[in-house]
Amino acid sequence: MGDEFDYIAWLRKQAARHPRLAVGIGDDAAVLKFPPAGVPRAPEGCLVTVDMLMEGVDFLIPPATPEQIGRKALAVNLSDIAAMAGRPTACVVSVALPRHGGFELGRGLFEGIAALATEFGVAIAGGDTNTWDGPLVISITVLGDPQGTGPVLRSGARPGDWILATGSFGGSLAGHHFDFTPRVREALALHQAAPLHAMIDVSDGLAADLGHILEESGVGAILDEGAIPVSTAATAARDGRSPLEHALGDGEDFELLFTVAAADGAKLLADPPCEVSLSHIGEIVSGTGCRLRSADGTLRQLSPAGWKHGFE
Amino acid sequence: MGDEFDYIAWLRKQAARHPRLAVGIGDDAAVLKFPPAGVPRAPEGCLVTVDMLMEGVDFLIPPATPEQIGRKALAVNLSDIAAMAGRPTACVVSVALPRHGGFELGRGLFEGIAALATEFGVAIAGGDTNTWDGPLVISITVLGDPQGTGPVLRSGARPGDWILATGSFGGSLAGHHFDFTPRVREALALHQAAPLHAMIDVSDGLAADLGHILEESGVGAILDEGAIPVSTAATAARDGRSPLEHALGDGEDFELLFTVAAADGAKLLADPPCEVSLSHIGEIVSGTGCRLRSADGTLRQLSPAGWKHGFE
Repeated sequence: MGDEFDYIAWLRKQAARHPRLAVGIGDDAAVLKFPPAGVPRAPEGCLVTVDMLMEGVDFLIPPATPEQIGRKALAVNLSDIAAMAGRPTACVVSVALPRHGGFELGRGLFEGIAALATEFGVAIAGGDTNTWDGPLVISITVLGDPQGTGPVLRSGARPGDWILATGSFGGSLAGHHFDFTPRVREALALHQAAPLHAMIDVSDGLAADLGHILEESGVGAILDEGAIPVSTAATAARDGRSPLEHALGDGEDFELLFTVAAADGAKLLADPPCEVSLSHIGEIVSGTGCRLRSADGTLRQLSPAGWKHGFE
Repeated sequence: MGDEFDYIAWLRKQAARHPRLAVGIGDDAAVLKFPPAGVPRAPEGCLVTVDMLMEGVDFLIPPATPEQIGRKALAVNLSDIAAMAGRPTACVVSVALPRHGGFELGRGLFEGIAALATEFGVAIAGGDTNTWDGPLVISITVLGDPQGTGPVLRSGARPGDWILATGSFGGSLAGHHFDFTPRVREALALHQAAPLHAMIDVSDGLAADLGHILEESGVGAILDEGAIPVSTAATAARDGRSPLEHALGDGEDFELLFTVAAADGAKLLADPPCEVSLSHIGEIVSGTGCRLRSADGTLRQLSPAGWKHGFE
C-alpha cells in the first residue's frame, strides 16, 4: 500500500478550508455540523443522492484525466440535488484505485473533486479509499438541504404548465459531459422566483427525462420543435442524425428541465433570475405521452415506449 | 441491460416497509423525513460514513454468498455509526454488478441489505445500480443521528480511564466477519448509562484500533493480558500464532472498544446495560504507546509503529 494516496491526510487539509465541515475527520464516521443559526435551514429532512462511475463504462483514461473524472463524479450528484432545488452541503467519496499508478490517480481525482466542492461550498466529509487489481471505480454520495417550500419532485407537473429548460441540448459526449456546470445556483434562484411544479436534470436525454416527469405526474406534453435549444456540438455533429435528434436523445446535458404555471413561466422569461439562458419549449397537457409540434402545427408522437430511440 | 436487477421497483417495495423513508424514491435524490416530533432528535448535525467492498479483495464468491456480502456491506457501516454511539437512520447503495449473473447477484445483495436494514430500522433511501464486465463492487453510505450528549469520538480518552470492550476477539476471518451483529444497540445503551469518553469499533484489530484512540487522544495505555476476551475461533486456530496474538491482531471483530471514567467502568460492569459481555481490559495512562501487562506484572511494549505486527 506504499503508493496509496494518503486520503486521510488530504481530507484533513481540505477540512481546514470548510468551516462547516466535519469534526472528527479520521473517525469512523464524520459529524456534519450544520450552518450556524441565522443561515436558512431546511424545513425538515435532508436530501441524499449517490452515483458510481466505472472505468471502461463511463470513461476511459486517457482521454479523460483523473481531475475530469473526479470533477464529474461530484458534478453528476450536485446536478441531482439541483434537480430538487436543494442546496448541497456535504459529500463522501469511496474509490477503488488500480494498484498500478493509484497514487497519482487518487491525487488527480481528489483535486478534481475538491475544486468543484469548493466552488459549491460542499464539505468533503469522509470516504473510503481502496486499491485493487481492477479498474477505477468511484462512488460519491452527496447530502443536501431542501430549500424554500421544500424539494421539487418529478411528480408535480399539471396540465397548462409551461415546460422550461436551461441552456442547450445535444452532443454532450463530444466533451461537455466532463466540464458542465451543475445548475445548483440556477435551480435555487428559479425556485425562489416562482413555485416550480416539477423538475429533473437531463441526464438520460431531453425526451427521456421529460418522459420521467410525465410518467410520475400522470400527464402528457407537447414540445415545440423550433423552441428546443440545440447546442453547437449537436449542430456540428456529422453522423447522419439531425441536430434535433441529438438534442432530444443524447443525454448528459445536465441542464434543468422544469414545469411552472404559465403566468410564472412568462414572468421567469421576462425577468430571468439566472444568467443561464431559459427556453420555453412546450406545455403540459392532460393525457399521456409526448408529441412534437413542428412549425406548421403538425403533431408527431415521440415514442412513449422508447424515449431514447427518438421518433416512432 | 435485460438481466439487470430492477432496483427501483425493489426500492419502492422496500419503501413501503419504512415509514421514515424517503418520499420521491425514483427521483434524482431521495428526501429523508426525520422521525415525527416526540422522537428524540439529534442535538444538531448528522453522522455519515461510507465503505466500499470489492470482489477479490474483501470477499470471494463463492464461498461468500450475495446475501452475506450485502449484509456485511451494510453491517460495517452500522458498526461505524455505533462507534460514535449514533442511531443509523438511512443508507444509499451503489453497486457495479458483473454483467454475467448480475440479476441474481443483485437480488441476493439487496436481500442481505434489506434484512439487516429492517432489523435496525434503517431506511434504504436510494442507490445507483450499474452493470459492467468487471468484478462486483458495492459501496454503502449510512447516515445517522448523534444521540444524547452527542457523538463519541476517538479523541476523548483521559488518563485514569478504564478500557472496556464488548464481546471477544480474534479469528473473525474464519466466518464471524460475515455474521457479526453491529453493536448499535449496545453503543446506545452504554452511552445512555455512562458518559463514554472515547470509542471505536474494532475493524483493524484490537491493538491497532486501541492505537487509534491513543494517538488521537494523546495518551498511553496498559492492557491486561489475562483480561482480554479471546474468541473460540482464536483459541481453535492452529497456525503457530497464539490465541492472544489472534485476539490482538486479527481485526474484523466489529466489537466496541471504549474508555470511561473508572467509577463509571465499575458501574457498567456491576450492572451491564446490554446483554453482550463487557470486559475491563486495561487502563489509559499519560504518555504514549501501549504496554501489555502479564499475570506476574511484567510490562511489554506493543509496537507503536506497527500495531498490526504485534509484539516488538
